[in-house]
Amino acid sequence: MVEALENNSPHKVVIVGGGFGGLYAAKALAKAKVDVTLIDKRNFHLFQPLLYQVATGTLSPADISSPLRAVLSKSKNTTVLLGEVNDIDPKAQQVVMGDEKIPYDTLIVATGAKHSYFGKDNWEEFAPGLKTVEDAIEMRRRIFTAFEAAEKEKDPEKRRDWLTFVVVGGGPTGVELAGAIAELAYHTLKEDFRKIDTTEAQVILLEGLDRVLPPFAPELSQEAEASLTQLGVVVQTKTLVTNIENDIVTLKQGDTVKEIASKTVLWAAGVKASAIGKVLAERTGVECDRAGRVIVESDLSIKGHDNIFVVGDLANFSHQNGKPLPGVAPVAKQEGEYVAALVQKRLQGATLPAFSYTDHGSLAMIGQNAAVVDLGFLKLKGFFAWLFWLVIHIYFLIEFDNKLLVMIQWAWNYITRKRGARLITGEESLAFANVDNNQTTSNYTPTNNIQPVNV
Amino acid sequence: MVEALENNSPHKVVIVGGGFGGLYAAKALAKAKVDVTLIDKRNFHLFQPLLYQVATGTLSPADISSPLRAVLSKSKNTTVLLGEVNDIDPKAQQVVMGDEKIPYDTLIVATGAKHSYFGKDNWEEFAPGLKTVEDAIEMRRRIFTAFEAAEKEKDPEKRRDWLTFVVVGGGPTGVELAGAIAELAYHTLKEDFRKIDTTEAQVILLEGLDRVLPPFAPELSQEAEASLTQLGVVVQTKTLVTNIENDIVTLKQGDTVKEIASKTVLWAAGVKASAIGKVLAERTGVECDRAGRVIVESDLSIKGHDNIFVVGDLANFSHQNGKPLPGVAPVAKQEGEYVAALVQKRLQGATLPAFSYTDHGSLAMIGQNAAVVDLGFLKLKGFFAWLFWLVIHIYFLIEFDNKLLVMIQWAWNYITRKRGARLITGEESLAFANVDNNQTTSNYTPTNNIQPVNV
Repeated sequence: MVEALENNSPHKVVIVGGGFGGLYAAKALAKAKVDVTLIDKRNFHLFQPLLYQVATGTLSPADISSPLRAVLSKSKNTTVLLGEVNDIDPKAQQVVMGDEKIPYDTLIVATGAKHSYFGKDNWEEFAPGLKTVEDAIEMRRRIFTAFEAAEKEKDPEKRRDWLTFVVVGGGPTGVELAGAIAELAYHTLKEDFRKIDTTEAQVILLEGLDRVLPPFAPELSQEAEASLTQLGVVVQTKTLVTNIENDIVTLKQGDTVKEIASKTVLWAAGVKASAIGKVLAERTGVECDRAGRVIVESDLSIKGHDNIFVVGDLANFSHQNGKPLPGVAPVAKQEGEYVAALVQKRLQGATLPAFSYTDHGSLAMIGQNAAVVDLGFLKLKGFFAWLFWLVIHIYFLIEFDNKLLVMIQWAWNYITRKRGARLITGEESLAFANVDNNQTTSNYTPTNNIQPVNV
Repeated sequence: MVEALENNSPHKVVIVGGGFGGLYAAKALAKAKVDVTLIDKRNFHLFQPLLYQVATGTLSPADISSPLRAVLSKSKNTTVLLGEVNDIDPKAQQVVMGDEKIPYDTLIVATGAKHSYFGKDNWEEFAPGLKTVEDAIEMRRRIFTAFEAAEKEKDPEKRRDWLTFVVVGGGPTGVELAGAIAELAYHTLKEDFRKIDTTEAQVILLEGLDRVLPPFAPELSQEAEASLTQLGVVVQTKTLVTNIENDIVTLKQGDTVKEIASKTVLWAAGVKASAIGKVLAERTGVECDRAGRVIVESDLSIKGHDNIFVVGDLANFSHQNGKPLPGVAPVAKQEGEYVAALVQKRLQGATLPAFSYTDHGSLAMIGQNAAVVDLGFLKLKGFFAWLFWLVIHIYFLIEFDNKLLVMIQWAWNYITRKRGARLITGEESLAFANVDNNQTTSNYTPTNNIQPVNV
């Protein structure tokens, strides 16, 4: 049953999740004498830090995605499985995928996080989050549909609601989204409409704490806020959102309660760990934190199961300075690589010192010529930070795929403020005319033979 | 009411449809002293000739799309309206969009065609066609999911069905689709799977007539068939499809009836004109042909209504040689430009000779180093045809947008047989594991708190 007990059978490493944690673990094991199985629900790795650029019409999903099979094509010890893990059986050492059971000797769980509404799941309908390609396409649809609807709207109050964009959450994603929407409204789209003036749009960024980009140094938060304001974003800190419903965002600033009417509310506020954390907790007794992250040991294994590791956004690693490491790509990448190294050491009968994260710094893009870079020893802002951000992202994006020219084109479009990928697509987009026009007064009665006019 | 009767008000041209016919008409009117309104259901112009490259994972939708507002941004006399036209009122001279009525002095209808199942609309579920971005994404999902499902399948018969691809229709789209899938199976994906051998896949192209690419010269049809065969495509001509249902394609070859079991059937066989043709017929009495195309006069207007024009795939223009012009981009483009010129001439009290199409030739891509080009005076095949095809398509694609680098990258990927855009996306893709695994035997009972594991 447990094939690891058989002699001569290579050590089986099963990795669940092909994000930064899982993929870097798999790549680091490419030449090891182990059998690797990487399981993901999607057939591609997604470069999530640039997902907001898909949501705002600058990049296409494929530009920031790499097919997992292509990335691991030359790792002949690695099998990619497309599917969803529903259970883990630590006793039998198997993961369960539907009616299939996949045996492991070492298990690496790297299923990441999804956005969280702090228990207010009904907000999602009005304020979509940004974790998947589908999320980004939906945000893109909403943003560009809002401008289209405003162009058609005759009631000035409703038109204002269509031109009001609220971004909830002042972390990197929220700051980058708000900046990108402001650039769209105040620059890219300025000449494109005839009835509305897109520069009258309002972009409002709401943050609960007292500054945007809380993980950055305070002076960079200030710089980011100043840049956002200059771009035209209304930044409201110390602001708690208490409700989002029917195009109304209710918020609390101290004792004051306010309402903002907006047709486009975007969620960048909270994440929670993917549900497999709870499966692990049930099956192994490991503890999870409030966000659902699995508390890991100093070697990223879980208590009592030294052959089960959790890496990336799903892990709560607090051994370095008492605080959990942030849910960002570099942490996941280093954790994945550490576990891959540890597995190989162990097969040689050795071990490794505890995991330790090397922080190379943080970046956030605000808009044209405006970004903040915090490398610890060096803090950049303005044009040089912006250039640094572009180069770093091009560098990481072309790591798996040779997309250099696409990325240079992207940088060029970025400089010229072009947004070529602003397609309104998806099933819902096809119903645009019907949703936003009240067609009850149409005087045309279709006969049986006539289908809806396909313009 | 009819604003054209008022003095000083500029002549109003309404264009319905932003494909090749409508967009080129609008562009040709950019500097004319007329008011132009372009109405489309989508916010982008789609370069349909390359849609099959989206369906087969080479290009992203945005690579072959241009936002209509961006293309027409500098045409200050032009308003773009996003919406669906449901009726036309020739007496009041207005088009109806929901509860909105848009007055015109001149109307240009360019709503194109959609795919047609010759009355067997139930085939669509099993054999999707390729007209919209959503169609292409759906085809892409089916093609790449088929390889994934084959990798998981243990029953050899079912695995064979997953690895059998049937393309119905041997026109340019069918030939290009079949060639691209063969390249995927026999080259691009060859190293990417561990349990299946993708080179065992079968790609079958079915054509009712006696040769593929019927509009081309017979020797190029022969050349195309030879190239397809060399690529590994099984070409079956004189083959009529009589049914498509539950993964079985039934066909008739002479008196022989055959069945092909295939999980991936793609439709490239027939088109019919968009339904607005029938609206026009009802409202104006104009005749339509069997495919629903509007019979137009020699100046592309319709009988009895010299201010209503039909251009592109929706028009049946038979004045040149008795046969209707084919539904291809160059015809639509020239027709749109002709009508734009005629409208301007008329405003000067003049007119133009009848429309006449200048055929610059036809191209079709089969695969690596294999294409056919028929310029009339010059027929190319093999590598030079292939290179010619690439250059021509890059030239036309960058006409509206400055996407030169993206297109060079595309050509490079094409040469290296890379397919970076092979994402399985969309709501349905998220259910992949559930659809293709029978999960009834899962021994994990989710508690209330546990949501589906998001890998």
